[in-house]
Amino acid sequence: MESRMFTVITTRRSTRRFKDTPVPEDLLRQVIEAGRYAPSGGNNQTTHFLVIRDENVKEKLAAQAEAAFASMEITPDTYKSLAGSIRASQKGGYVFHYHAPVLVLLANRKDYGNNMADCCCALENMAIMANALDLGSCYINQINWLREDPDMLSYLRELGLKENERVYASLALGYADTADGLPVREALPRKGNDVTWIG
Amino acid sequence: MESRMFTVITTRRSTRRFKDTPVPEDLLRQVIEAGRYAPSGGNNQTTHFLVIRDENVKEKLAAQAEAAFASMEITPDTYKSLAGSIRASQKGGYVFHYHAPVLVLLANRKDYGNNMADCCCALENMAIMANALDLGSCYINQINWLREDPDMLSYLRELGLKENERVYASLALGYADTADGLPVREALPRKGNDVTWIG
Repeated sequence: MESRMFTVITTRRSTRRFKDTPVPEDLLRQVIEAGRYAPSGGNNQTTHFLVIRDENVKEKLAAQAEAAFASMEITPDTYKSLAGSIRASQKGGYVFHYHAPVLVLLANRKDYGNNMADCCCALENMAIMANALDLGSCYINQINWLREDPDMLSYLRELGLKENERVYASLALGYADTADGLPVREALPRKGNDVTWIG
Repeated sequence: MESRMFTVITTRRSTRRFKDTPVPEDLLRQVIEAGRYAPSGGNNQTTHFLVIRDENVKEKLAAQAEAAFASMEITPDTYKSLAGSIRASQKGGYVFHYHAPVLVLLANRKDYGNNMADCCCALENMAIMANALDLGSCYINQINWLREDPDMLSYLRELGLKENERVYASLALGYADTADGLPVREALPRKGNDVTWIG
């Protein structure tokens, strides 16, 4: 029985090419519900899920992110994935969400100590649930990196972000653009993530 | 088929009373492996799992945490769960890990932008896998809060933490101390974790 569960968890891979096919409403709701049932610090339940399917909104988010990244400078301390976004944005045509049919932003209260942790646990629940439902997903950091960008913040507030909330994680979601529409699932051996056994 | 996955995710609850019964080795390895397969920023795989079963080590960790919390002051800005640990430690007899048979610490490089996110995704994979295997688990923040405490850091390094690593999340794991040894699983309706639909 539980080999199925183990398989779903270990075959989750990042999907970065999506079909245009919409995600069926009942599957999307299962994925969001899975996220809502993640643990939270002191059972606070203050994660706020912004579920974006509107093409215009996704386009505007991509354009705003590109503009923000394009104006940044890369220093030796810049996190390598962020440096990649800056370079791609300066080149132009950068769409951080891979045109996924659904983009879920996970926000939380900025003055709450478990904000990042709660959002990440919710995100992982959604990624696992998506894989179980034959949907591809990808962890997205870009909105998170622009958490305090005034233009981004102002637009997110138009979309429903509350005054005291910030985005801590995001998930791109949809059917993988593969021949069979299924996510690539070959479970890759781990090269890192070391384990130290104590007792 | 996938109603099983949805059920496993939505019935995961925090277990805070554990039986002394050890976690069978094969189940523990499945839980850790599930954690190792979580996504990581740029596929970095730098999460380091410290799996603690040694009773003396768990006791020493509890005593060190108690001493550190007991010396802290509560201010109006103190996160309420941390304030709880401080109060309990000042009172005495505080054991942050609930005497769970297994305590897993998740560490990562302190200069890596996705350290907290990666550890939390790994932790959630483990919590879900544990529930699927009839094991109880609880998200633990206390070592995380003492991340830079010099005494704690020094002891963790004796246990195998690397110089540039810090602890970002922990999981208590074991059989629940209930009549049937199964975790309490009633899926509680969410009171928060709001969803905003955009398109």
